[in-house]
Amino acid sequence: MVNYPNGKKNTFHHEKTGAGRRGMELEKEINMTNDWYLNQDIAVIHKKPTPVQIVKVDYPMRSAAKITEAYFKLPSTTDYNGIYRGKYIDFEAKECALRTSFPIKSIHAHQMVHLEAVTRHGGIAFVIVRFTASDETFLVKAMEMVEYVRTCGRSSIPYAWFTEHGILIPYSYVKPVDYLKIVDDLYFKETVNE
Amino acid sequence: MVNYPNGKKNTFHHEKTGAGRRGMELEKEINMTNDWYLNQDIAVIHKKPTPVQIVKVDYPMRSAAKITEAYFKLPSTTDYNGIYRGKYIDFEAKECALRTSFPIKSIHAHQMVHLEAVTRHGGIAFVIVRFTASDETFLVKAMEMVEYVRTCGRSSIPYAWFTEHGILIPYSYVKPVDYLKIVDDLYFKETVNE
Repeated sequence: MVNYPNGKKNTFHHEKTGAGRRGMELEKEINMTNDWYLNQDIAVIHKKPTPVQIVKVDYPMRSAAKITEAYFKLPSTTDYNGIYRGKYIDFEAKECALRTSFPIKSIHAHQMVHLEAVTRHGGIAFVIVRFTASDETFLVKAMEMVEYVRTCGRSSIPYAWFTEHGILIPYSYVKPVDYLKIVDDLYFKETVNE
Repeated sequence: MVNYPNGKKNTFHHEKTGAGRRGMELEKEINMTNDWYLNQDIAVIHKKPTPVQIVKVDYPMRSAAKITEAYFKLPSTTDYNGIYRGKYIDFEAKECALRTSFPIKSIHAHQMVHLEAVTRHGGIAFVIVRFTASDETFLVKAMEMVEYVRTCGRSSIPYAWFTEHGILIPYSYVKPVDYLKIVDDLYFKETVNE
């Protein structure tokens, strides 16, 4: 396998995805989708900044403060939250390079606890998992994943579990990860039917 | 005025606040309050990490990745958000060292736009302002401040405006900035009366 000049590995992702998908990572695609939601005034959902422990900062004259020593911290919550149709939205998103299973350790235990607390307080909490090999992006309700993880006694969730309990998120050029379409189906159906 | 050995200015804050307050900064006090809300399972509200543009990272063998060049970025949203009583909560918090007015530039224009969008989507959006000289911490509904800022034609909001439009947030040892008490009064009164 030949690497790109920028040092990135040339994965199978590109060949499998056909015309539409351009091999963007999940995070970039979600950010792009969130920007679209924001610009269309559909929802206000943002990615939280990466938590960093800042140790040393230089304050040079006449220029911006420069952080010269810092370390990555474990996030205390999930990566994304915001508001949609009056409801609090909270989710974590993960890529998975394995074809047949998703390692449970990809999501920290305290993130599970957080998603559970959000659900308990009346928010909408879910997890987005992309299997990069098959280029499928699933939305799973947080509580379904939490309950599975608590009872399965395994270190990973089989791919087949996602095809049964997850819902495929549709792709479009302007909304590469149009997860709110799934949120509508899962959480607002009763409201629509009433 | 004598400075502390750590280089911090000895402000009037301490003398004025009496027994209860220990001169913590607003951010620490809000974090402490949020921790209390979280531990009591009252609300799930967190401070977002400081946004940082990471430029260079060292990956030393056998130790944690070290960020060696990074810069502070302008936040695209507010500092705090989460969920309370099923509602999306979003706010910005600022200390003000001036006695008579709050400089409008303390809150970025895009943060005002964000708080307005949150309100439009059915969330609870407000601003917490502490006047450190008088040691008073006010909660102001975001839209009241946005409307004042749009129409006042000034570069600052007078202290008197806060005493009229803001509500003083009570202090207690375990909840130094008990803003949800005010949120109850302002946003959940109808629900309680029904």
